[in-house]
Amino acid sequence: MAQINDNFLKLKAGYLFPEIGRRVSAFTEANPDKAASLIRCGIGDVTEPLPLAVREAMHKAVDELGNRDTFRGYGPEQGYDFLRNAVADNFYQDLPLTAADIFISDGSKCDTGNILDIFGPGNKIAVTDPVYPVYVDTNVMIGNTGEADEDGRYEGLVYLPCTAENNFVPALPAEKVDIIYLCYPNNPTGASATRDQLKAWVDYAIENDSIILYDAAYEAFIQDSEVPRSIYEIEGAEKCALEFRSFSKNGGFTGVRCGFIAIPETVTGASSTGERISIKSLWSRRTSTKFNGASYPVQRGAEAIFSEAGKAQVSALVEHYMGNAALLREACTEIGLSVFGGENAPYVWVACPEGLTSWDMFDKMLNDANVVITPGSGFGAAGEGYFRISAFNSRENVIEVCNRLKKHL
Amino acid sequence: MAQINDNFLKLKAGYLFPEIGRRVSAFTEANPDKAASLIRCGIGDVTEPLPLAVREAMHKAVDELGNRDTFRGYGPEQGYDFLRNAVADNFYQDLPLTAADIFISDGSKCDTGNILDIFGPGNKIAVTDPVYPVYVDTNVMIGNTGEADEDGRYEGLVYLPCTAENNFVPALPAEKVDIIYLCYPNNPTGASATRDQLKAWVDYAIENDSIILYDAAYEAFIQDSEVPRSIYEIEGAEKCALEFRSFSKNGGFTGVRCGFIAIPETVTGASSTGERISIKSLWSRRTSTKFNGASYPVQRGAEAIFSEAGKAQVSALVEHYMGNAALLREACTEIGLSVFGGENAPYVWVACPEGLTSWDMFDKMLNDANVVITPGSGFGAAGEGYFRISAFNSRENVIEVCNRLKKHL
Repeated sequence: MAQINDNFLKLKAGYLFPEIGRRVSAFTEANPDKAASLIRCGIGDVTEPLPLAVREAMHKAVDELGNRDTFRGYGPEQGYDFLRNAVADNFYQDLPLTAADIFISDGSKCDTGNILDIFGPGNKIAVTDPVYPVYVDTNVMIGNTGEADEDGRYEGLVYLPCTAENNFVPALPAEKVDIIYLCYPNNPTGASATRDQLKAWVDYAIENDSIILYDAAYEAFIQDSEVPRSIYEIEGAEKCALEFRSFSKNGGFTGVRCGFIAIPETVTGASSTGERISIKSLWSRRTSTKFNGASYPVQRGAEAIFSEAGKAQVSALVEHYMGNAALLREACTEIGLSVFGGENAPYVWVACPEGLTSWDMFDKMLNDANVVITPGSGFGAAGEGYFRISAFNSRENVIEVCNRLKKHL
Repeated sequence: MAQINDNFLKLKAGYLFPEIGRRVSAFTEANPDKAASLIRCGIGDVTEPLPLAVREAMHKAVDELGNRDTFRGYGPEQGYDFLRNAVADNFYQDLPLTAADIFISDGSKCDTGNILDIFGPGNKIAVTDPVYPVYVDTNVMIGNTGEADEDGRYEGLVYLPCTAENNFVPALPAEKVDIIYLCYPNNPTGASATRDQLKAWVDYAIENDSIILYDAAYEAFIQDSEVPRSIYEIEGAEKCALEFRSFSKNGGFTGVRCGFIAIPETVTGASSTGERISIKSLWSRRTSTKFNGASYPVQRGAEAIFSEAGKAQVSALVEHYMGNAALLREACTEIGLSVFGGENAPYVWVACPEGLTSWDMFDKMLNDANVVITPGSGFGAAGEGYFRISAFNSRENVIEVCNRLKKHL
C-alpha cells in the first residue's frame, strides 16, 4: 500500500495567494463592470518589460541552439561558468566567495524549498513573523513541525516577531535554534537590516553552531549605502550563512526563471555522529542528482544583466519601481496611516486604519477602491493589522492607486 | 547545532557520469593528440539542432516579454494551459486524462526525484536492475534505504533483474512492493515493454495497492505500432500509475529544460490513518509551494513541438537518431556481439566480448577505439557484462564509431 507523506495534511488550506485570487475572482464575477479598472498590487510580480540586453542574449542563445556547431545539450547542473563567474565578479567581489560557491537554479522559490533536502530531522527552525509562506510550508511538508494552531502557527517552529517596535528585524531568540531564515530587504515588510543587526545574528549563529538561510532576493532595491547588500559583508557569515538571490525582481525574470544560492566552502553542519560535513558538498550532490541545470538561453539572459547595457537597464527598472514605492509611501502618509518599508525594498507595509483587520482592509480596498493589496495577516499572526502594497506596477497605475487611497480612506 | 541529512552519507561516491568524465579527462590529458578524434557515445545527450519551430516560438516569446502589453511574469506553477492542452490533445487523446492532469516542469530528472516529496516513509520501493541512477539515489537521499553493499545495492530496495532471459522487462516481485519505477522504452537497455507485460504490472499494482512511476521519456522513439506509447493505454493504469515525460529527447530540450508528469485524478495513496488521498492534489500542492513554473519562452518552445512544422521536425530528428541506432546494431552484430535494444529506443545495449567486464570494455573502447561508451555495470549489478552505446550523435560520427568497432573488436 503506497503511503503518502502525512505532513502534507498538516498544511493549512489557504495558501495566501490562492485565497486572494479566490476573493478577486468572486469580486469581478459579481462586478463585471469593475473588472477593467481593477489594479493589482497584491502579489509581488514585476510588470515592466524584460531588459533589452537580456532579450538580445536570449535570442542569441536560441540561435546557437539552432546550429549543430554551437548546440548545447545538458549543461553543468551547478550552472555554466560564464554565469557563475559573472555572479561572483559582480555580486561578491572582495567578499570571501568564489564562482565555485555559486549554484545557479531556476529561481529562489525552488531553492529555499529544496535546501531542506540536505538538512536532517530534529533541527530547531526559526522563522520571522510575518514571513514569506514558502519557508514555513516547506518545513511543514518535510516534517519539521507539528500541527498548526488556530492562528496558523505550527508547533515546533520558533516564530520571531517583527514589529514596528523592533523595526521589523527580530530580536535574537531566547532559546537555541539551529536554522534561521532571514530575508532582507524583507518580503513582506519592506524593512532592511543594518550591519549591526546582521552582525548580531551572525554572532549568534556562530556561537550556537546554527545556519542562517539568508534570502536577499530584493538586494537590487537597496538605496542606502549603509545597508549591507549581502550577508557576506558581515564578518563570520562565510562560516554560518547561505545566501539566496534571484534575477526575478532586478531583471524582471519572474516568468523567465533564474536564481542562485551562494554556499561558502566553510559552512558546515553536523552528522548524527558529530562529523562536520560541508554544506556545499551536500548541495552539490543534491543538485547533481535532482536537477539538470537552468535553461541555457535563460542563463545567457541572466549573464546579460551584468553587461554594461544590462546594468543600466536594471538600474532604470529599479528606479522606476522605487519611484512607485515613494509615491505609495507619500499617499499613505498623507492620509494619516503609519507607513513602513518602501525605502530599500519594493514593498510598502502599512498599518490598517484603527479597528480594521488585515482582511477587512483587503476587502475594503477591493470593494471600495478596486485595488488588490495583500493582507498582512496572510504572512503570519504578527502581520495582523497591516497590509502590503507592492510597488511593482506601471507609474500610471500607481498614481491612480494613490488617488484612490486618498479618496476612499 | 544544524544537523545534516545523514542519508546523503550513504550515497556511493561515484555517480556514473562523473566517473566517466574523470576517466575521459585522464585519457585526454595523457593523450592530447587523441582528444580531437574522441567520439562520445556515453551520456544520452542529444546532438542535433533544436527544431526551427521551437526556436521560432521561443524568439516570439522573448519578444513578447519585451513589450509591456504582452509581458508575463509569474505563470501558473502547474504550467500554462496552452501547453497542458497541447500535451493532453496530442499525447493523451482517447485516454482517460485531461489537461488538468498534466503538470509541466523543467524536466524529468527533477520530476522523478521530486515526486518522492509526496510519499511517506516506510514504502517498499522496487527498481529495475540495471536502472537510471536517479531513481535509486533520490530514494537514498530521502531515507528510503539502508546502506549499500559492495555491489552498490542499497538495503531495503527491491531490485528487479532485467536480463536477456526476460527481454529486460522484470518479472513481478515475489514480495509486496508499494512503489515501482518502470521506464519503457528503457534507459539503459533500449528495451521496450509489450502490452501484456505492462498489463501484468498494472494488475499487480491494483491488486497490491501500489503505485507505478512510469518513465516514458523515450516514447518518441517507438517504431513498432504494437508497443504502447503510454502506460494509460493499459486498462486500469489510470488508477495506479503516474507517467513522466520529457521534451529532452524528442525535441532536443536537454539544455532547454521542459518535461511533465501526468497524474490522473483516480490515483490515490493512503495516509497513516488509512484515509485515501489523491496523489494529484498532493503534487499540485507541492508544485504550488516549491516551484514557480517552467520558463515562459521554454513552454512556448515546447508547445511548438505539437505544431505541424514541429511534428515534422521532431520526426526527422527521431528518424535520424534511429537510423544511427540501426547502424550501431548492425556493426555490433557483424563483429559477433549480442545486441539488444536500439529498435524502439535510442540506446543499443551490447554484451561485452567474453571475459571483459563493463569497465574493462569502457577502458578498451576509450583507449583503443577512442570512443566513449557507458559501462552497463554503472546502472546496476545486473548490467555487469554489458555496455550501452548512445545513438545520439551525428551520422558521420556514428559511421566512424561503427568502423572503429569493426577495427578494434
